Amino acid sequence: METISIGLLGLGTVGTGVVKIIENHQDKIMHQIGCPVKVKKILVKNIDKDRDVSIATDMLTTNPDEILNDPEIDVIIEVMGGVEETKKKLLHALENRKHVVTANKDLMAVHGAKLLQVASDNNCDLFYEASVAGGIPIIRGLVDGLASDHITKMMGIVNGTTNFILTKMTKQGKAYEEVLEEAQRLGFAESDPTSDVEGLDAARKMTILATLGFSMNISLEDVKVEGITKVTEEDIQYGKQLGYTMKLIGFAHRQDEKVEVSVQPAFLIDSHPLAAVNNEFNAVYVYGEAVGETMFYGPGAGSMPTATAVVSDLVNVLKNMRLGVNGKTATSPQFKKNLKKPDEMYSKYFLRLQVEDAVGVFAEITSIFSENGVSFEKILQLPVKEKGMAEIVLITHHASLLNYENILIQLRDLSSVRTVKSSYRVEGGTK
Amino acid sequence: METISIGLLGLGTVGTGVVKIIENHQDKIMHQIGCPVKVKKILVKNIDKDRDVSIATDMLTTNPDEILNDPEIDVIIEVMGGVEETKKKLLHALENRKHVVTANKDLMAVHGAKLLQVASDNNCDLFYEASVAGGIPIIRGLVDGLASDHITKMMGIVNGTTNFILTKMTKQGKAYEEVLEEAQRLGFAESDPTSDVEGLDAARKMTILATLGFSMNISLEDVKVEGITKVTEEDIQYGKQLGYTMKLIGFAHRQDEKVEVSVQPAFLIDSHPLAAVNNEFNAVYVYGEAVGETMFYGPGAGSMPTATAVVSDLVNVLKNMRLGVNGKTATSPQFKKNLKKPDEMYSKYFLRLQVEDAVGVFAEITSIFSENGVSFEKILQLPVKEKGMAEIVLITHHASLLNYENILIQLRDLSSVRTVKSSYRVEGGTK
Repeated sequence: METISIGLLGLGTVGTGVVKIIENHQDKIMHQIGCPVKVKKILVKNIDKDRDVSIATDMLTTNPDEILNDPEIDVIIEVMGGVEETKKKLLHALENRKHVVTANKDLMAVHGAKLLQVASDNNCDLFYEASVAGGIPIIRGLVDGLASDHITKMMGIVNGTTNFILTKMTKQGKAYEEVLEEAQRLGFAESDPTSDVEGLDAARKMTILATLGFSMNISLEDVKVEGITKVTEEDIQYGKQLGYTMKLIGFAHRQDEKVEVSVQPAFLIDSHPLAAVNNEFNAVYVYGEAVGETMFYGPGAGSMPTATAVVSDLVNVLKNMRLGVNGKTATSPQFKKNLKKPDEMYSKYFLRLQVEDAVGVFAEITSIFSENGVSFEKILQLPVKEKGMAEIVLITHHASLLNYENILIQLRDLSSVRTVKSSYRVEGGTK
Repeated sequence: METISIGLLGLGTVGTGVVKIIENHQDKIMHQIGCPVKVKKILVKNIDKDRDVSIATDMLTTNPDEILNDPEIDVIIEVMGGVEETKKKLLHALENRKHVVTANKDLMAVHGAKLLQVASDNNCDLFYEASVAGGIPIIRGLVDGLASDHITKMMGIVNGTTNFILTKMTKQGKAYEEVLEEAQRLGFAESDPTSDVEGLDAARKMTILATLGFSMNISLEDVKVEGITKVTEEDIQYGKQLGYTMKLIGFAHRQDEKVEVSVQPAFLIDSHPLAAVNNEFNAVYVYGEAVGETMFYGPGAGSMPTATAVVSDLVNVLKNMRLGVNGKTATSPQFKKNLKKPDEMYSKYFLRLQVEDAVGVFAEITSIFSENGVSFEKILQLPVKEKGMAEIVLITHHASLLNYENILIQLRDLSSVRTVKSSYRVEGGTK
C-alpha cells in the first residue's frame, strides 16, 4: 500500500499539533482514506531548537526547495504564517502540482483569490478551513451545509482576544487597560496586541467569510474596521442597563445583491445567541433566507483546534486524491462585487452625549434627529456629577449610515452638546 | 446541456419547500453543478388536493413505480415519512441505481445501516443531513469538519417541542400541562405529543449522531430514554436556585472505546453553552479531544430549514455526479459496538427527597451515600409546609449509575425517607 507524503511548512505550536494528530489518529485517517499518511519533511528556521515533539533531525530542513521540489511529496501544509514570502512558496507548490492546506488567514484575506485560481489551473486543492475560527467548521458549513440557501447576514465573534477582554470588562466591570494586561499575562493577548484589538484580525476573517457566504470577491480594503480600544466600562454598563451586551462583531450583510462588511464594537440585545458567547470562544451567526438563524460555536484559536481543522482539510484532500477529483470541488465567485453606499447601510445606533442641563436642549437635540428622519427606540437621561450637565443615552430605530453621520456632525456643532462620548452600532431588539 | 431530473416522494410542507428552493435558487444550483435541475415527478396521496405551490397536475402521481422505475430520474428525494413501506421504496430506488436524499430520521435510526450498505453496493449516494436538526449542518460537521478528531462527547438539544416546553416552564414558572397546551396551540407540539415528550424523537436523532460521531453501529434499542412528562416546575426552580437549567439532553459519551447513549431531562450548569439554547431552537454540542468544545445551533425543524438541508444534500449528490464519485464518499463504521455497563457510566446527579425532620435522619441518609462511595457537591435543606417534614436537595459528585441506583434503592427502604421526589442527571460545574 502506497504511503502519502506530506511536507510541512512551519513547526510552531500548530505544526507540532498537526504532527501529533497525524501520528495519534493514523488508524482513523487510514480508515477514511485507505492508505497510510506520513509527514516526510518539515521546514523550520532552526534545526537544533528544543521541541515539544520528538522528530528525527533528518526530517527537518531550513531549505524550502527540499520540500517544494520533492516529487514524492503530494500535499503541503502551511502553518508558518507570513504573507508575501509565504505566497511565493505556495504558488511554487501549486505550480509543482502539490495540494495545499493552509491556516493562514492573513494570506487568504489578501491573496486568496489569486491562490485559488492557480490551484484550480493546476487541478490542485487549496483548503483553508483553519484560517477562520480554527475550531469551528464554518467554511465547510457555508460551502456545503448551506449550499442551497441564500445567506443574507453573517455576524461573527471571530477574535478570541477581544472577546476575552470585552467579557471581562462586562462581567467584572474592569477597565480596558487592566483587562488587556490580564489577557497578556494569561496568554490570550500578544505583547503587541494591535492586530487583535484594532479589529484587523477579525477583518481578515470576515473578508474570507463574506467572499464565501456571498460568493463575491470581497477584499480586505472593502471592510470598514473599528477596534475596541475606545470602548469604556461605562459604555458597557449603560448598555447592560438597557439590555444589551457589547461584543466586537464582524458584520456582513447582503440586500438586493449589494453587500456591506465591517468590524466594529457593537451592542447585541441580550437574547441574541452571540451575546452568550464568552471569554476566548468564537462563534459565527448565519442568517439564511430559508434556514433562518444558525450559529457555529467553538474555540477560535489555540494550537490543537487549529491543527484539527488543518488535518480535517488534509483528510479531505486525501479523499479527493483517492477519488481523483482534486481541484474540481471549488467554485469561483458567482457575483460581481457590489458594495452598499452609506445611504444604503441601515442599522440602529447607541449614542451617548453630554449636554447642558437647560430648558430646550432636549428639544434641540431631538429635532436634529427628526429632521434627518431618524426616530428613537429608547432614551435615557441621567444626572452627572458636574453641575449644570446631563448625560443622554439614545438608541435609535434603523437609520442609514449617511443620515446618522449627518446627525453626528450637526450634534457636534450644537453649543449645548459638550461631547459625543460614544457611539456604537446596535443589533437586535424591537423591529 | 443535460437537465438532471429529480423524483420527489411526498409533497407536504417539506416537499413543497424543496420544490420552491429548487425553483428559486436554480441559478445558484446551476453555478455549483453546471447544469439545470428539475423536479420531474412527485408522489402524492391525493392528486386533487389544494396546494401552496403551483404544480402541473401531470407532474403528480399516486403510483410510486412511475418514479422509482423511470430511467430518466437520477435522484430520489424522500420527504413522505414512514418506516417500513418507505424503506421498501428506497431499497427499490437504490437497486435501480438512483441516489437518495432523505429527511427521515425514523427510517435512518432503524434501517440506516442496511440502506447505506445497499447504497454503497450500488454506487449510489444516500444522504440524510435533514434527518437530524434540520437547519444545522451537524452531520457534515461530524463527517468532514471534525474528521481527524476523536470525539468523546456529544450532547444534543435535538427536539424543538420539548425545548419549547422546558423553556416556558423555566422562564414563566408554568406547569408542564399548561405549557404543553400552549405549544399545541402555537403548532410547536402535535396533538399527540408522545413521540416528542417521551424522548423517542430525540433518541432516534441521537442514534444517528452517535453512529456517525463514534463510527459505531448504534441502534435505537441501545439508547436509554426518559421523557419530560414527570418534570415539575418545582424541580426546575430548585435547579435554578443552584445555578442549573433543565433541558432534555441527548447524551453520547465515549471512553476507552466504550460508549453510552441516552436521552433524559438533565440539569446543565448555567454557563454551559447549551443552557442558553431556548424555545424551539436545537443545538448539538460536540467535544473532541483536539478541538475541545464546539456547538452547532439552529432551527431543529420547520419546513424551510429541513428543505434547505435536503437541497444541500441534493447539491452534494449532483456535485458527486459531475465528478463521477457517487457512492464512494461514505465510510462504514470503524469500530465494533461496545456499550458501557452501569458500573462504567459516570455522572453527577440531582436528587430531591422528602424526609422526616428528626435528629439523626440526615446522618442516616448521608451514610448511605458514603457507603456507596459517593460524595456531595451541594446540599440544600429546605423547610416544607407539612409539619415534621423537611426537603433535601442534593447534588452529588460523579457516581457510577450502578452505585447511584443502589443508593436510590436503599433510600427508598429507609423509614425516615417519605419520598424520592425527583432525580436528574447533572452536567457541568466544579469537577
